[in-house]
Amino acid sequence: MTDRDKPASGEDSLIAHYFRPIATDAGAFDLGDDAAALKTDGNDIVVTTDAIVEGVHFLSSDPPDTVARKALRVNLSDLAAKGATPAGFVLTLALRKADEAWLKPFAQALGEDATQFGCPLLGGDTVSTPGPLMISITAFGRVPAGKMVHRSGAKPGDRVMVTGTIGDAALGLAILKGGNVTAATASNAAAREMLIGRYRVPQPRNALANAVRDHASAAMDVSDGLAGDLAKLCGVSGVSAVIDLESIPLSDPARDLVSRRIVGMETLIAGGDDYEVLCAIPEDRVEAFAQAARLAGVQATSIGMVVAGPSAPKFVDGEGGEIVLERLSYSHF
Amino acid sequence: MTDRDKPASGEDSLIAHYFRPIATDAGAFDLGDDAAALKTDGNDIVVTTDAIVEGVHFLSSDPPDTVARKALRVNLSDLAAKGATPAGFVLTLALRKADEAWLKPFAQALGEDATQFGCPLLGGDTVSTPGPLMISITAFGRVPAGKMVHRSGAKPGDRVMVTGTIGDAALGLAILKGGNVTAATASNAAAREMLIGRYRVPQPRNALANAVRDHASAAMDVSDGLAGDLAKLCGVSGVSAVIDLESIPLSDPARDLVSRRIVGMETLIAGGDDYEVLCAIPEDRVEAFAQAARLAGVQATSIGMVVAGPSAPKFVDGEGGEIVLERLSYSHF
Repeated sequence: MTDRDKPASGEDSLIAHYFRPIATDAGAFDLGDDAAALKTDGNDIVVTTDAIVEGVHFLSSDPPDTVARKALRVNLSDLAAKGATPAGFVLTLALRKADEAWLKPFAQALGEDATQFGCPLLGGDTVSTPGPLMISITAFGRVPAGKMVHRSGAKPGDRVMVTGTIGDAALGLAILKGGNVTAATASNAAAREMLIGRYRVPQPRNALANAVRDHASAAMDVSDGLAGDLAKLCGVSGVSAVIDLESIPLSDPARDLVSRRIVGMETLIAGGDDYEVLCAIPEDRVEAFAQAARLAGVQATSIGMVVAGPSAPKFVDGEGGEIVLERLSYSHF
Repeated sequence: MTDRDKPASGEDSLIAHYFRPIATDAGAFDLGDDAAALKTDGNDIVVTTDAIVEGVHFLSSDPPDTVARKALRVNLSDLAAKGATPAGFVLTLALRKADEAWLKPFAQALGEDATQFGCPLLGGDTVSTPGPLMISITAFGRVPAGKMVHRSGAKPGDRVMVTGTIGDAALGLAILKGGNVTAATASNAAAREMLIGRYRVPQPRNALANAVRDHASAAMDVSDGLAGDLAKLCGVSGVSAVIDLESIPLSDPARDLVSRRIVGMETLIAGGDDYEVLCAIPEDRVEAFAQAARLAGVQATSIGMVVAGPSAPKFVDGEGGEIVLERLSYSHF
């Protein structure tokens, strides 16, 4: 039995056993130092931080490998929306105990995602807590100096575009919590699995980062609900928007649940955890952006227009009538 | 009553109210974006992350301003030991509720320290938790490319040096917890206050960072106990060390408690939370390092020598006898 095969005891051996094998970047110094060194090559470093808490952002029953992937991917999604290329991340892990059965699949999945997205583990801190599990990740990306894409910058006349499909993760969470969505999907295992998968394992759109950087006037990732996040983007850009509700891209299971009136559109566009890119694309860049999205294998859909004015974005139905939303997004407090 | 004077409700207004005023760096974009941008100017970015948890790293009864300072300073201490100049930090705050009485002094003290140490708030994430408060900070520093000081690199013949005094924070914690140290300091309010202050508010040695970078062959900050941290530095450097117990710098209150046999030296050198710099200085650099420390107003003391060999560092008393330590440092698991 080699040292690497032994279960961990103590904080240092926990780190050595589970995390050193996945900290393959030279700047991580095998996690044997107080800090990592990030080479910059003349770029700006884009920094984003997102934490996930057991019982708040993920469920105690979620498998550890999906928790690891979600923790990293919610940060990768921010980098994608800022037009940045992943450069690495640091991890803070607050655990009740060092549990081999949880840590082993967690670390393995984290390492797989780090490799897949080219975002190596650079360092971290492991602490004990009597409370819920918490995983806080700070991720770094590189952009040419001054080229980070901002939330501000959207201009009247820009097209509002969004990647992937909206609302699946909110439905996945609803299924896991039990209730009318659970009952309505009981006979469709494939739909259930797809929606739960979208909640547990986001698909960050890093393949589209260069296109966002090249073409978007403003961008952010959709994490707290499309409606609320669009309101934020418009707010800091000093503009408004008109969104065609029927253009919002839905998956087949989501469309089915809406058409059966199990859920309303509001549930989908005010739900969280989409981790899609929302952006404003100047009209003369729309075709180039759409082309880049096709090449990257990412669906990108035009859902409306940026318009002038200070009012909140309007959501209109097929007949042009405005839908007033009760709730825009998720808030922690 | 202006908007800035209103208590926060909701995550966004909490951030706007308490943290936007202290996020003064241009790269923080007023905390109105998904990410920050860190200018690098051709330097490497040194990245360190340390979390503090209520009941583990600080006490529920610790004032919020000292909690804020500790959360940032434990990270600043890492930057100092790596020879890096502070560049900024991101904050993850896990709270049970948005409590004005706690958040206001917390944010204010954090802002004061950010200014004092030239380490601006760049971004963060605020999440709700049913568990203990947790503050996770990832801090960034700049070093010329390739110049980060490592734990590895200590050579036989180097002097082992440490800044400040050792063991005060462990005594401060012992006083707060109640017990023989509490009783032994009951009649000395000044000593009690000094020791508790050392536990609650570390004094990171950032003023010495350039000297560490210019002269140290290896360095780390002392956070988990001098004995254990020295063992780590020696381990990754592939060397050992001989430390003269009587040379270890103690504050007057600590020396008094040792001489009265209230505590042993082991309590002081295996306790945590010192946040001093421990480094190996080649003999021909010792005078220059000492001179730089004097100019920076930081006490730096030679406590022994790096020697060849794989064994754990030895601690010897005035007669040259070796002291065997039962416990080297604090571990979370």
